[in-house]
Amino acid sequence: MSLLFLSTPSRLPVWRSMFASEGETLIEGEAAVTDPAEVTAIACWLPPEDLSRYPNLRAVISVGAGVDHLPPMPDGVMLSRTLAPGIEAMVRDWVVMATLMLHRDMPAYLDQAQRGDWKGQPVRLTASRRVGILGMGRIGTLAAQTLQGLGFDVAGLSRSGHADAVAMFPASDFDGFLARSDLLVCLLPLTNETQGILNAKTFSALPQGAALVHAGRGAHLDTEALRGALNSGQISTAMLDVTNPEPLPAGHWMWGDPRVIVTPHVAAQTDAGEGARHALAVMRSLRDGPPMPGLVDPSRGY
Amino acid sequence: MSLLFLSTPSRLPVWRSMFASEGETLIEGEAAVTDPAEVTAIACWLPPEDLSRYPNLRAVISVGAGVDHLPPMPDGVMLSRTLAPGIEAMVRDWVVMATLMLHRDMPAYLDQAQRGDWKGQPVRLTASRRVGILGMGRIGTLAAQTLQGLGFDVAGLSRSGHADAVAMFPASDFDGFLARSDLLVCLLPLTNETQGILNAKTFSALPQGAALVHAGRGAHLDTEALRGALNSGQISTAMLDVTNPEPLPAGHWMWGDPRVIVTPHVAAQTDAGEGARHALAVMRSLRDGPPMPGLVDPSRGY
Repeated sequence: MSLLFLSTPSRLPVWRSMFASEGETLIEGEAAVTDPAEVTAIACWLPPEDLSRYPNLRAVISVGAGVDHLPPMPDGVMLSRTLAPGIEAMVRDWVVMATLMLHRDMPAYLDQAQRGDWKGQPVRLTASRRVGILGMGRIGTLAAQTLQGLGFDVAGLSRSGHADAVAMFPASDFDGFLARSDLLVCLLPLTNETQGILNAKTFSALPQGAALVHAGRGAHLDTEALRGALNSGQISTAMLDVTNPEPLPAGHWMWGDPRVIVTPHVAAQTDAGEGARHALAVMRSLRDGPPMPGLVDPSRGY
Repeated sequence: MSLLFLSTPSRLPVWRSMFASEGETLIEGEAAVTDPAEVTAIACWLPPEDLSRYPNLRAVISVGAGVDHLPPMPDGVMLSRTLAPGIEAMVRDWVVMATLMLHRDMPAYLDQAQRGDWKGQPVRLTASRRVGILGMGRIGTLAAQTLQGLGFDVAGLSRSGHADAVAMFPASDFDGFLARSDLLVCLLPLTNETQGILNAKTFSALPQGAALVHAGRGAHLDTEALRGALNSGQISTAMLDVTNPEPLPAGHWMWGDPRVIVTPHVAAQTDAGEGARHALAVMRSLRDGPPMPGLVDPSRGY
């Protein structure tokens, strides 16, 4: 019973020592596999193409929070996405920063700074702005709590409806949710249902001049629809950590548009220790039985 | 018993209706004064040069939180600075935004964006960064609580030592406080003692590569010392809402330096309703006796 490590090599030293202290076996890369039948779990960003090489494989562990980049698993192989408090807090921090930056007109100030233009915009209280969070999983709930603590009027939209701290809209009232979102925050997982959800129809249902904070996945966003909404004034500003296409090529219009701020998919990175701790918990669940932490439901896609 | 209003005209309608509903008399500008002996209070950013015109003047109310721009008051005239929850929350929001922006490498990402360069920097947990707040009054305490809630390791330095929620350093241990401040936040009032406090000696006592968030007053900062500390790497990045000189002239090196982000003194603006409410409370204290809200102690200077 071993875990095959196929993640970033810089994380290896931490994994090695944590696996050793728990008495679990870590195989460092495919070249180090002597008996494929020993491999019961694989930790990776992308798994090897041919998983049939490992007859006793029972779990693939994604080292990130998302699993949309992974192919379907063969029968009998479970998929676990890494649940790490650090990832959740990091994304929350980025979302709080981005929401404050759009609320406090940083796109305008950064543009003015290029011309050395000292000119204040009216300052608004957070209580006067309505934030709408698309995707109220663990990260969305955390972000909602912090933004509410800063005084924003926060609501969430969720299929499963975890949160009870903020006003919740059911998925069936998407338009009602959009109509009260001055600042729309996307934290959705990428599934067939959510792909392209940030489109012209969605933007047109927002209050005029709404702002967009996007830390979901690039494929949620119809980039040309965003351009149209910016040009019509329907959307005032946007801050994106994920783009479509991604990476955003040099020369793309979004890099140079003063209404758009892009960060290169850095809302979170898995901490090596947290990733190893999650993988060890998965190994324990394979030995002792369910529940497996971070188990992905293939029918939901997350 | 009347209040002479000399603040921004756009705030007048709100003041007018609030004074009317409390039965207090509001005189709208010096031209409207018929009997100077009726004026008991003046609300202003800067008072008229010759206050001796008003023999019964008992209070000058600064419509902002700071009073460092005001001349000494004549004998018998008290000075009140506007205490408004909105001002405090607005400055807190700006400080939280600025601290997150420096923590999450926004200066580097904004600079990369100009070249269309998609390149991630390592993401750090807030728990790994020590924030030091210079000036733990009402705003500093609020900022400390929010930043601590985000996971930062927060300490404060204060003469009076209000806060008990975070680690507090006495003013006598300024060097110990600086040595543990990866992110230094200045929220001090401007007094003879604090003028120029952000200087080369202060910067050299910080951990190497520390970042500076400044929402105090321009005159706290030795701008050339900041340039030296940036060039030596002692300070990595800075975000300033106040500058020295202020306004910052077009062409000043700080506008163009990718390590420095400047906003044009917009951390807070007094909400008209909150300002009027404070002024009415001052009027009540003149009628009914102390305590006067926001009373400035001339010996401390704030």
